[in-house]
Amino acid sequence: MTDALREPGCELCALSVPTVWAGDKFSIIVVDDANYPGFCRVIWRDHVREMSDLSRDDRLAVNEAVFLVEEAVREVMQPLKVNVASLGNVVPHLHWHIIPRYADDAHFPAPVWAQAARSTDPAILAARRALSTQLGAAIARRFT
Amino acid sequence: MTDALREPGCELCALSVPTVWAGDKFSIIVVDDANYPGFCRVIWRDHVREMSDLSRDDRLAVNEAVFLVEEAVREVMQPLKVNVASLGNVVPHLHWHIIPRYADDAHFPAPVWAQAARSTDPAILAARRALSTQLGAAIARRFT
Repeated sequence: MTDALREPGCELCALSVPTVWAGDKFSIIVVDDANYPGFCRVIWRDHVREMSDLSRDDRLAVNEAVFLVEEAVREVMQPLKVNVASLGNVVPHLHWHIIPRYADDAHFPAPVWAQAARSTDPAILAARRALSTQLGAAIARRFT
Repeated sequence: MTDALREPGCELCALSVPTVWAGDKFSIIVVDDANYPGFCRVIWRDHVREMSDLSRDDRLAVNEAVFLVEEAVREVMQPLKVNVASLGNVVPHLHWHIIPRYADDAHFPAPVWAQAARSTDPAILAARRALSTQLGAAIARRFT
């Protein structure tokens, strides 16, 4: 394992939230998002800006990780659609969002970054949130 | 080449815009977006919903395509950041957005689907738009 590339002040270099899986190259978290239970992130360890800054092997590794998380999200969360994105305008440290989407979610069919269209029934959100542990296990299982 | 999987009424099954590159498995377009010159899409040929519905080889092929388009966008458009996303809530036919971002663009640092924060100087937009042909050539060069 090489020394990690670190950027002072970068919140993803100093990742301080619990991970469901963490390896030498990337970590995976289930985000505690009020509107989007099951929202996951794959966070590259090094302070790298773009996918195209990675070596080919590393790029394939992160693609595979995003794919495996998407699979776990589909298995456990049973969403209508999965949204996958790497943006990083605010924190330019490579990370991927994997977001389960439902017809009754706050923004559907718009992206989650658009203006909210509705409030989801709290009981439905709670039922989805109750799957978090199972989702974490389904992710971890794919990486061990 | 196998017969394409088609969904009646799907606008991406019946792709009617000019492509900068089109192959057996996917097409690439430069989107004529008023706020985002250089916005590209990689559109899978078959009516497939999610990345995780693809075979491994196909998934790697689309990942490679998105990577090569990102490289071309960086080379020609010289953005501050690239945003990459596969959403598909409105049109659940697998496609990827590759979007060059700049500090002066309409939404920066928010995602392009958020509420606009400003108007970009029309002269700057025109200068970026003038790179479209060069961008198309830089993409096509990577696929031939």
